Amino acid sequence: MNLQDVRLYIGLVHYPVYNKRMQVIATSVTNLDLHDISRSATTYDVAGYFVIHPHQAQQRLVGEILRYWMEGYGAEYNPDRREALERLKVTATLEEAMAVIEEKEGRRPKIITTDARTYDNSVGYRQMRERFVAEEGPWLLLFGTGFGMEREMMLQADYILYPVWGRGSYNHLSVRAAAAIILDRLLGEPWFEGDFCVPCSATESSE
Amino acid sequence: MNLQDVRLYIGLVHYPVYNKRMQVIATSVTNLDLHDISRSATTYDVAGYFVIHPHQAQQRLVGEILRYWMEGYGAEYNPDRREALERLKVTATLEEAMAVIEEKEGRRPKIITTDARTYDNSVGYRQMRERFVAEEGPWLLLFGTGFGMEREMMLQADYILYPVWGRGSYNHLSVRAAAAIILDRLLGEPWFEGDFCVPCSATESSE
Repeated sequence: MNLQDVRLYIGLVHYPVYNKRMQVIATSVTNLDLHDISRSATTYDVAGYFVIHPHQAQQRLVGEILRYWMEGYGAEYNPDRREALERLKVTATLEEAMAVIEEKEGRRPKIITTDARTYDNSVGYRQMRERFVAEEGPWLLLFGTGFGMEREMMLQADYILYPVWGRGSYNHLSVRAAAAIILDRLLGEPWFEGDFCVPCSATESSE
Repeated sequence: MNLQDVRLYIGLVHYPVYNKRMQVIATSVTNLDLHDISRSATTYDVAGYFVIHPHQAQQRLVGEILRYWMEGYGAEYNPDRREALERLKVTATLEEAMAVIEEKEGRRPKIITTDARTYDNSVGYRQMRERFVAEEGPWLLLFGTGFGMEREMMLQADYILYPVWGRGSYNHLSVRAAAAIILDRLLGEPWFEGDFCVPCSATESSE
């Protein structure tokens, strides 16, 4: 399997997640989570983006936003946005998202997630790129909202990615930023192997 | 110079930028650009984040948002957010941002930017990490809003980073996602060198 061909889905989990007091809650949908994460998902050719929320009112809200950009004025004004949001689907549960993937791919996905702590099945990003090539997919990469997914859900994962570290001890990336960085580390061009430049060969040099 | 010690500032340019018809405009401030990019900047220990906007009404809007999170209820409710927004400063022009940096650092910053096209002074991310170590800073990394910075502003840059490529041809990351990915490529831990894990040595393993 080539990294270009890996079938990776992502899911944004709104329930069950912790709040800052470590109580289990459902978080609200944030408009820019839909847009930004869809655009990142499309850039990294993610096979599908599931917004996982158990409440019907929140599911309807996502549906209304999607309709504006898929069929309403938004679709005409910004077709790039429509292309990105096309891969977004709302499900009530993780199980429902997995069933959709299984229906499409003929196999249940292996689950990858992230956490601020390390576990026995924690893996680095380089190692996960190698897993993608060595193992059969499909894959479902989960991001938690709020203060992270409930522990029981974490423990269902086949692989848990190491936390993303920058410089220093501050570690409060938005889920939009974290999703972008993690997709880049897992599926991005191998820029780290040298002065790799996709467009240099494809586009003419200006200036 | 060690990569840990590099003095990098970032700037979000609202004017002069292009709209989709390649007219030069000023874009509006987006609330989550302030929050998300401040949080990413703090994670990667960026020395300062300049929001560059020539219009006083937009400057005031940023000021009001900042006051809520720095002094209002937001500061009490979410001190992590205050810590992130502390490094945000509004300036009217790029020149004003450069003057603030020069005042603080004793040197004018070298300018880095990004573009969808490649130029004679285009560099890869690996190469830029090496420049950081080899050359004296400080540095100012600029992100354009809208459909990108005006060409004259681009040409003032000392280095122009290659575009970020994922998989496939879709290339419409949000500026929040692009900023996160670029900071990770330039200043993030060297995860690509193997199964590098900062917290593994620092925190106890659970499970």
